[in-house]
Amino acid sequence: MTQDNNQTITELLRKRISLRKFADQPLKQEDVDWIIEGAMRAPTAGNMMLYSMILITDANKKQILSETCDHQPFIAKAPLIIVFVADYQRWFDYYQSSNVKMFCTDHGLEFRGPDEADLLLACSDALIAAQNAVIAAESRGIGSCYIGDIMENYEKHRELLNLPEWVFPVGMLCFGYYPEGARLAPRPRFERKFIAFAEQYHQLTPEELAEMLAIRESAFSPGNPFGAKNFGQWMYARKTGAQFSTEMARSVREALKSWRGDLI
Amino acid sequence: MTQDNNQTITELLRKRISLRKFADQPLKQEDVDWIIEGAMRAPTAGNMMLYSMILITDANKKQILSETCDHQPFIAKAPLIIVFVADYQRWFDYYQSSNVKMFCTDHGLEFRGPDEADLLLACSDALIAAQNAVIAAESRGIGSCYIGDIMENYEKHRELLNLPEWVFPVGMLCFGYYPEGARLAPRPRFERKFIAFAEQYHQLTPEELAEMLAIRESAFSPGNPFGAKNFGQWMYARKTGAQFSTEMARSVREALKSWRGDLI
Repeated sequence: MTQDNNQTITELLRKRISLRKFADQPLKQEDVDWIIEGAMRAPTAGNMMLYSMILITDANKKQILSETCDHQPFIAKAPLIIVFVADYQRWFDYYQSSNVKMFCTDHGLEFRGPDEADLLLACSDALIAAQNAVIAAESRGIGSCYIGDIMENYEKHRELLNLPEWVFPVGMLCFGYYPEGARLAPRPRFERKFIAFAEQYHQLTPEELAEMLAIRESAFSPGNPFGAKNFGQWMYARKTGAQFSTEMARSVREALKSWRGDLI
Repeated sequence: MTQDNNQTITELLRKRISLRKFADQPLKQEDVDWIIEGAMRAPTAGNMMLYSMILITDANKKQILSETCDHQPFIAKAPLIIVFVADYQRWFDYYQSSNVKMFCTDHGLEFRGPDEADLLLACSDALIAAQNAVIAAESRGIGSCYIGDIMENYEKHRELLNLPEWVFPVGMLCFGYYPEGARLAPRPRFERKFIAFAEQYHQLTPEELAEMLAIRESAFSPGNPFGAKNFGQWMYARKTGAQFSTEMARSVREALKSWRGDLI
């Protein structure tokens, strides 16, 4: 009997947190199997499965990833890591072995490699599958944490994970059982009125932004290493304008060179 | 009592299909609320919530979307549509009202608008939230279908949905209750060995690709309107090389012009 009979879906979604400290034990094979099955049942564009999963348990590889993904030591301690990659390689290799080039020539079509939109569609498949993996894991008492930093250091990750040209690592998940007494309270989100809009987008006014961020602003301390004088400056210094963001920008721009829809 | 006590998470993930025919009734407000709450509980990078949801029930708008999203009439009949948009507008508006530009000048930093990596990170947030919405909906007997075609016709969708520059519609979901007797069998996926790899990516050989696609190839008929002589050519003609893909490529390329990390 699986653990998920003990908790409703509502409870699961409400209670889920990003877990960064794991019980010190490997995942049972049946749990790993279920995470993969859950991911593979996710909806996918045209049933093409434009993604792959790379399961990592090797200690050396986890150690490297903990460094290349913005120096987060907890990554090395995760019993299981899965890198979700947007993957058009499989289909384009298949197109090539199916003589699509000749077909295109015969029918006055262009045969082009994947482009930026193909990348976004494949990233969509990968992330939708990743979130199914998160849900599947939680249903077995396994916590997880996304690592967006896998989009940094493209060249190093290509080499480490043996990625061909039309495979892009868009998301990474760390998995592990919850340690004793570690279940934390979910972090508060912004109020719904700032996130969900009826019929059309509403661009927030400065007053609405101030209201949205009032609670977070109230916790801001002017004594910070960035010299930020308010919460907005502090967030920019820590996140959007930080070194890891600059590296992610460079890395993604480098990766995008493979996704220009060039003639094959 | 909510319906989700009746079904385990395992069953939900295993049974979920893409629903394209809905019961002819609007969603109950409590169900809409729960879908939104479920989405908003999704993990999000740095708890920044780099996405927004636009809920659409207006018949005229649904009609337009059914045309702009690759002419799929069923879209107009969905009781609820939610467009998931990658959203950095909110944070950059906040940065601007927080005098981040001055902060950057004072500290020798550059103040740059969102770049391609920011777009991918915000798309990740949006898609992870979207899949939570799918799960939340299923737990209440509400089916859903993703429409990736929302990435086409960028200019029209910007106008229709009032999207500012740093908001990109990456995913759309149609929602509705399952109609009587409509629950269909989930579509088979590729075998796990072709999708999930241990420790590093494995590029499939032509033989492995043929094995992966054997079942689908066996259903291929040479009598098709594209003149395709095999399944690979048929898929290229129908999907990757089709007119909607060309439009999506153009549209995304146009949208990307706003995500170049230009100096502000």
